[in-house]
Amino acid sequence: MAGVQGSALAAAVSAAGGLGSLPAAMLTPEVLRRELQALQQATGGRYNVNFFCHKPPEPDVARDAAWRAALAPFYQSLGLDVAAVPAGPGRLPFGEETARLLAGFKPAVVSFHFGLPEPALLAQVKALGAQVWSSATTVDEARWLVQHGADAVIAQGLEAGGHRGMFLTDDISTQMGTLALVPQIAQALAGSGVPVIAAGGIADARGVAAAMALGAAGVQAGTAYLLCHEAGTSALHRAALQSEAARHTVLTNVFTGRPARGIVNRVVRELGPMSALAPAFALPSATMMPLRSAAEARGSDAFSPLWAGQNASGCRAVSAAELTEALAAGFDSRNGLGL
Amino acid sequence: MAGVQGSALAAAVSAAGGLGSLPAAMLTPEVLRRELQALQQATGGRYNVNFFCHKPPEPDVARDAAWRAALAPFYQSLGLDVAAVPAGPGRLPFGEETARLLAGFKPAVVSFHFGLPEPALLAQVKALGAQVWSSATTVDEARWLVQHGADAVIAQGLEAGGHRGMFLTDDISTQMGTLALVPQIAQALAGSGVPVIAAGGIADARGVAAAMALGAAGVQAGTAYLLCHEAGTSALHRAALQSEAARHTVLTNVFTGRPARGIVNRVVRELGPMSALAPAFALPSATMMPLRSAAEARGSDAFSPLWAGQNASGCRAVSAAELTEALAAGFDSRNGLGL
Repeated sequence: MAGVQGSALAAAVSAAGGLGSLPAAMLTPEVLRRELQALQQATGGRYNVNFFCHKPPEPDVARDAAWRAALAPFYQSLGLDVAAVPAGPGRLPFGEETARLLAGFKPAVVSFHFGLPEPALLAQVKALGAQVWSSATTVDEARWLVQHGADAVIAQGLEAGGHRGMFLTDDISTQMGTLALVPQIAQALAGSGVPVIAAGGIADARGVAAAMALGAAGVQAGTAYLLCHEAGTSALHRAALQSEAARHTVLTNVFTGRPARGIVNRVVRELGPMSALAPAFALPSATMMPLRSAAEARGSDAFSPLWAGQNASGCRAVSAAELTEALAAGFDSRNGLGL
Repeated sequence: MAGVQGSALAAAVSAAGGLGSLPAAMLTPEVLRRELQALQQATGGRYNVNFFCHKPPEPDVARDAAWRAALAPFYQSLGLDVAAVPAGPGRLPFGEETARLLAGFKPAVVSFHFGLPEPALLAQVKALGAQVWSSATTVDEARWLVQHGADAVIAQGLEAGGHRGMFLTDDISTQMGTLALVPQIAQALAGSGVPVIAAGGIADARGVAAAMALGAAGVQAGTAYLLCHEAGTSALHRAALQSEAARHTVLTNVFTGRPARGIVNRVVRELGPMSALAPAFALPSATMMPLRSAAEARGSDAFSPLWAGQNASGCRAVSAAELTEALAAGFDSRNGLGL
């Protein structure tokens, strides 16, 4: 949910009885501190903050040049020069600086995407008293997470919007639908005491009830919140979610270098969905941003990452409280996390 | 389930309270008649018979030659000559001859894959008193089926083993996970009176309960039955289903020309999973068969279609009655089909 929400949505979800989550992957330290202060104050600590913990890539001049060559026609069509764009650092993974910043707060849950940080960093997070959660997209990843200290595993089915959390494989053919993945992970973790949280395609109370039936102790819903009043979703993104286009999402690496699910638009269609030219995560972001900005200024979403899962049917322009209560109607508290 | 089961499994499922299904796509008229006689006698008509209704392809000499060139190294490795293999007709779709044959029987349900047969043929099927079911892999396909006379729609999620039933698109990126697809089709068909049957990734009672929670009136389970005593699944296929290899299935067109989900093996890895060279459905079958036969004679499944869905966790070497009763524990008869 990075880029489409901040503490406002997370606080509203927590206030309504859910566990609101703050996506920290794209926040500067200053903004992260401000957002955590707001959340801590609003929720008393009953919130989740999410970080990415990938390995930062080595620069690769040849690959960058090939990528820029592929983007050049798009740049030209918007009157821009791709050679003038400086290489960006991509997204910084969770590190020492962030861990120190986090030490001033008391989040109930700290979650990670792309595995877990190294043991010393993980110990710092656990010392805060926070539960540590992370996403698994395969049974192997779920087992790895438990072995490395996760307190809960998010079983991220193929339907989920945004980045695949995959970290032991980069083969997207290994990715499973939520209905197949959740029971297999639940079975693999039975006896470990580590609960499973289902994610991917859950848009309403029926989806929540289905996930609980499959053995999940909770669910993670993202796409359903994208039209909420408190979300920071752009007007173009909101329009796409409410259009027929939302019926066709794909895994694409053209925005960041890693597979992530979004609505098909021009750049996904013409450059992807999976491009062998895309530089390592998250280097493409720097060269995609000028295209996005220029197109959005003209009212076009042709170069915007329109993150969405395979089930946008739950997206409604309501308050986060109304949506959270609607989802909770499918929740079975007998099997729940009790957070 | 074509190639892995016959009337024995279908009759056992019906006897246990399910609706047993006979896959007719690969049967000669003589075998089909014999199988239908057996099923009719065993069940009194409470069974489903399934046909394919694709358009037979035009011969394409250049494409066939390119395909044979791609297969040549595999043929050589087994001491065979690909040029010596006659082109096969592929699989015959449901047609006049089959409709006449079927007129001697009283199946409760006749189902189709790849859409529906033309109106005159469909009318002949309906005149038997049979319900007509077909698979939808998208919301558009579900609407089309209802408009063209389907009495129930099977929402086939991406997890499902075997052939994708897709017929309005050949873009596999449009295919959705069961947990996302079922509620969207249920919503689209609400008010039509046409029930939705969930398929894909359903391996146990929890999966059945989840499907019912999503709005399905019933479920279709295939992979879970592959190890049953009454199934015709080969020993090599059974071994693969019980191995770690079963954790990785993909959509591949190398066996038949259409995307179908199976366990990754040598030919899928080296030629696919999706090959741009594969001739139209189901022409590749003729050229794959000699490879399969020669390899299987040596105890290798390298060229066998190891059909399986993304959740083989329900596969157990039990009777079909035991499995059917286990699945039925998740069934909610308040919402069921009442067949």
